[in-house]
This record gives sequence, C-alpha cells and structure tokens, in this order.
Amino acid sequence: MIPYWKDEGALEPRLERVVALIAETTDSEGFPLRELVVEAASPNGKLLRPALLLIGSDFGKKADSGRIERLAAAVEILHVATLIHDDIIDESPLRRGKPSLYASVGTTQAVLAGDWLFSRCFYLAAQSASPENTRGLARLISAICQAEIDQDLGKYEYPSSVRRYLRTIAGKTAALFSLALYAGASEAKAGRAVEQTLRRAGYGIGMAFQMMDDILDFESEEDVMRKPVGKDIAEGLCTLPLVHALAVDEKGMRPILSHVAASSGEERAAFAAQAVSSAVSLGGVEAAKKDAEDYTERALGEIRRLPSGGARDELATLAQRLLHRAY
Amino acid sequence: MIPYWKDEGALEPRLERVVALIAETTDSEGFPLRELVVEAASPNGKLLRPALLLIGSDFGKKADSGRIERLAAAVEILHVATLIHDDIIDESPLRRGKPSLYASVGTTQAVLAGDWLFSRCFYLAAQSASPENTRGLARLISAICQAEIDQDLGKYEYPSSVRRYLRTIAGKTAALFSLALYAGASEAKAGRAVEQTLRRAGYGIGMAFQMMDDILDFESEEDVMRKPVGKDIAEGLCTLPLVHALAVDEKGMRPILSHVAASSGEERAAFAAQAVSSAVSLGGVEAAKKDAEDYTERALGEIRRLPSGGARDELATLAQRLLHRAY
Repeated sequence: MIPYWKDEGALEPRLERVVALIAETTDSEGFPLRELVVEAASPNGKLLRPALLLIGSDFGKKADSGRIERLAAAVEILHVATLIHDDIIDESPLRRGKPSLYASVGTTQAVLAGDWLFSRCFYLAAQSASPENTRGLARLISAICQAEIDQDLGKYEYPSSVRRYLRTIAGKTAALFSLALYAGASEAKAGRAVEQTLRRAGYGIGMAFQMMDDILDFESEEDVMRKPVGKDIAEGLCTLPLVHALAVDEKGMRPILSHVAASSGEERAAFAAQAVSSAVSLGGVEAAKKDAEDYTERALGEIRRLPSGGARDELATLAQRLLHRAY
Repeated sequence: MIPYWKDEGALEPRLERVVALIAETTDSEGFPLRELVVEAASPNGKLLRPALLLIGSDFGKKADSGRIERLAAAVEILHVATLIHDDIIDESPLRRGKPSLYASVGTTQAVLAGDWLFSRCFYLAAQSASPENTRGLARLISAICQAEIDQDLGKYEYPSSVRRYLRTIAGKTAALFSLALYAGASEAKAGRAVEQTLRRAGYGIGMAFQMMDDILDFESEEDVMRKPVGKDIAEGLCTLPLVHALAVDEKGMRPILSHVAASSGEERAAFAAQAVSSAVSLGGVEAAKKDAEDYTERALGEIRRLPSGGARDELATLAQRLLHRAY
C-alpha cells in the first residue's frame, strides 16, 4: 500500500524527513534489537499521526520546522510503542501483514522494546516540545493505558454500552489524533482559538477513524486484509457494530457470544463469524457507519471554522478520505 | 523493615512528602488498577533513589523544594515501573515479599500498569525538571531497557565476562543512582564541578549496591529474605560471584551450569544451589565483595572532593551503610 501522503504536495518531503528522523532515533548502535525495532517503526504504516501534527503546525506562523518534525517523529514512535505492547496483550502473531515483534522475540523483549521506544519518544519530546506539550504526551500515554486496561477488563463480557465504547476509543485513538493536531498548532503558535478548534477536529477525525477500523473487522476478507473476519469478537472485544446489534436483539445475540467466550481455536473463530453475520443482519454495521459519518461531519464543522487556506483544505480532504478509506 | 531514612533528621520530613506525592500521582481516580498500583508504589521499598536526589539537591543553593520533591517522586515512580515490567520478564511471583503485580493481574495489565507509571513519571518530570534532566530520564530508561535486553539475550549462557557484568549493572542500576544525585544537584544549581563529582559518586554507589544485591543471592536464607538461594542462577543470570568462580574453575563449574540450563522446577533449583556452593568454595563471593568495596572506596574518594557539610557526611554514611547493608 502506498502511504496516503505520497504525492500530497508539500507534505511529502516533510514526512520523508520525519521518516528519516524515526529511523535515526530508533537505529541506536548499542541497542540489541536495533534491526527489529527499526523495522517495526518503518513507515509501512500510514503516518497519519505525524501528518496531522505537520498539518496542525501549518496553521501557525512561527514554526521551527526541525522542531516540528522531531515532535512528529516522537508522536509516531509513541504510536509504534503502543502497537508493540498491544501485540503482547492481544498475543497477535501479525502486525501489518508481517510477524509482530512479540511473535518474533517473545514477551520479554517486546515489553522492553516498547519501553525503549517510549523513552526515545520522550527524549525527542523533551528536546523539541514545550513543557506543556511534553506533559500532554505523558498524559496521553496515561489515557491510552487506561483505555486499554478498561477494554481488557471487559473482555468476553461484551458490554452493550455505546458510552463505554466511545470512552475506550476516545482514549486509545482519538486522544492521539487530537493531541497531534493541537501540539503541531501550539508549537507553531497558531493562537488559542485555532488550537482548540484543531483539538476538537482531531478528536472527531480520530473517533470516526477508529469506528471505521472496527467496522472493517465485520467486512474484511482474510486474503485482502490479512485479518480474519470477526477477530475482534473472537478476542472478546465489543466494538460499535456489535454494540448496535445488541441494542436491537440482545436476546438473540447473547447465546452466540456466550459460545465465543466458552470456546477456543477454530470453534471460537466460527462462533465469532456467526456473531458477525448476525450483527450485520441486525443493521449493526450500517448504524456504526452512520456514527462514523456523524463524527466526521462534526470534525468538518470544526474545520470550516478554521482560517481558510491550504492547510484547512488538506485537513478537510484527509477527514473525508479517512471516512471512505480511500487511503 | 523500617526504611533507612527514618530518624535521619532533615531527610525524613522531605521523604514523607515524596511518599505523599507518589501516592497522589499514582492514585488516579479513573485508573482501573488504582489500588494495586498505589500499593506497588508505596514505600515499603527503601526510597534510596529519591533520597539520593534530595541529598544531591542539598549541594545547591537555589533549590525550589516542591520542584525537587516532585522530581524525586518521578525517579521512584520510574523505578517502580521498571520493577513491574521486570516481574513480567522474570515471571516473578513475589515482590518485596508480597505477590507481584504480574502475579496478581497477569501480563496484560502489568504491561499497561508499568507503561502508565512511566507516563506518570514523565508527567512529573515535564512539570518539574529542566529539559536537560527530562532528557536525562528518557535516556536513562533507554539504558535500563538496553541492559535488560542484553541480560535476557545471555540467559543460561552464563558468560564469564566481568566486563559484560559491569556493563549490565551499570545500565540497570548505577545509571539511575548516578542520575538521581546529578539531577538533584543540577536542579538546585550546585555548579558543574560538584554535579559531575556527584554523578561519579552515584555511579560507584550504584555499582557497589547492585554487587551486594547479587551477592545476597549466594547467601540469603529463604525465610529471611523470602528469596531462595541461587534464584539468579536458576533464572539463567550470571552475576559477579559466579563470574569470579568461572574464572577460577571454568571446567568444574560448566557442567553444573549445563544441568541448571537443561533442567526445570525443583531439579533446576537443586542444581542452582549446587552451583552456589561451588561458587562460594571457589572464593567467588569473597572476590565479589572485594569489588563492591573497591567501588564504594572510589565513591568515597569522589565524595571527599565535595564541599564539606551535612550533605557530604550524609552521602558518605549512606555509601558505607549500603555496602554493609546496615539498612
């Protein structure tokens, strides 16, 4: 997959520099897992978070581009660190279609590699960000951990609460999108009103993004996405389409979910697939897409309040493309 | 065990405030593992690292005591976070005589609880430290992770290299002792010469401390230390007494170590105990104690170069007591 920012004009050379900074920061000579970590942090991912940070900084006047790019690298490194720890937690064999670091080196070294990346992220932040934004990054990791723990505690209970779902994805995804736009703008002194508007826009974009990501698990075909349908349900997670399906027919859905929780291996995968088709039939995916559209609309409403210009257009385009996964 | 700083005069009320700050920082209302984390971070430990930071700050003139105490709390929280991840890595059932967080809540939540504590540490640092010391903390975590990975990669190989052993304990222990003294002095503007001397003194104290800690594993009785003799060897670690024993009689020691590596459970524990008695007979413990004394002597040499006064006396006393484990 070509990263979405290829041929996006002014963003491309800057993201290339961010990629170089990530490689430089993670390619530490003395670090024994050097190659694996450089590989894990290499941008076969979409680099959405650094892109948001750069776009945010374009709303300001006084951007020091080196500083902004280091902070963008820090944000992506933080994201990669959370993915590495996530894969331990989910016991994921794959990440982006390749063996996960956890699968390659085991729990011990994956824990330490993630910790090491957190420390590299903070090093960059302490070098390049205002103390306010460094604190923001620290608070962000707290929020992500809290959301992940909450999610873990509810595993296989499939709580049918929209509110709980929204709280979880706010912590694990939207908070980082929001911080990236805000921190870019604030480091570039965009002014308080613009910074706050960007914070809200990033939140909406992140919420919609995670909803669409969760919806994919109800639609993907294994050979395309390298991810089996119903993986989230099989892992005990209750995402938005399932929450909506439970609201429509809790009595019909619960027995299937109990089977998922009580089984394992291929049997569990089969029950999860069954839960997926029931949820789809009950309109759960459709309702979830409607929610993602609503959050995108809200974000676009915020974006319209920003000063007009290239950065605003770019952000609006990004929000719409993420909704339709044109990237 | 009474923390060593009880009745140590001026240090006690300040460490009490650090303890309160640690509790305040970790006792976050929304955090699901709140009680367990507060418990893990509560000072049944020795609070050595914050004590060193406070003593370091006493060499300066312009200390803002609130700022210094927050930084001391950050250093202890960092230490607790590394212990929580260590227990996952070592699959330790116990920590300070109680069930470890890992044993209580499992890998997933222990990974996240450690991450969460790292983020709280950085939050405090970004609030209270100079960017230089915040970067120092970040670099320190990198060094600790690197040493732990190195150690893990050599497990059950028992490399008979003093140099490798020294490098490992420098990263996992001495670097933090060194940073604590240095950061305290530097935040209090003690001046470059004093700060560098304290950095070296902290390094020596930390090296000796870890050596003595490793020696305990060759001497402790289970009912006293709550840690069986030879636990390190059983876990595949090659600490200083064993390194020295290998230098004396590699041929005699290797077969026993191969048995440790090849066995498990009680059998492994028995072979490890056998390795311990052989290492003791070969003078490994004695030689290791001599090394710890040398490092303490070096640290005391640095300490004598510091401006005379209460802080210097306190530091010298601490270095000597740690060597003899009078605490």
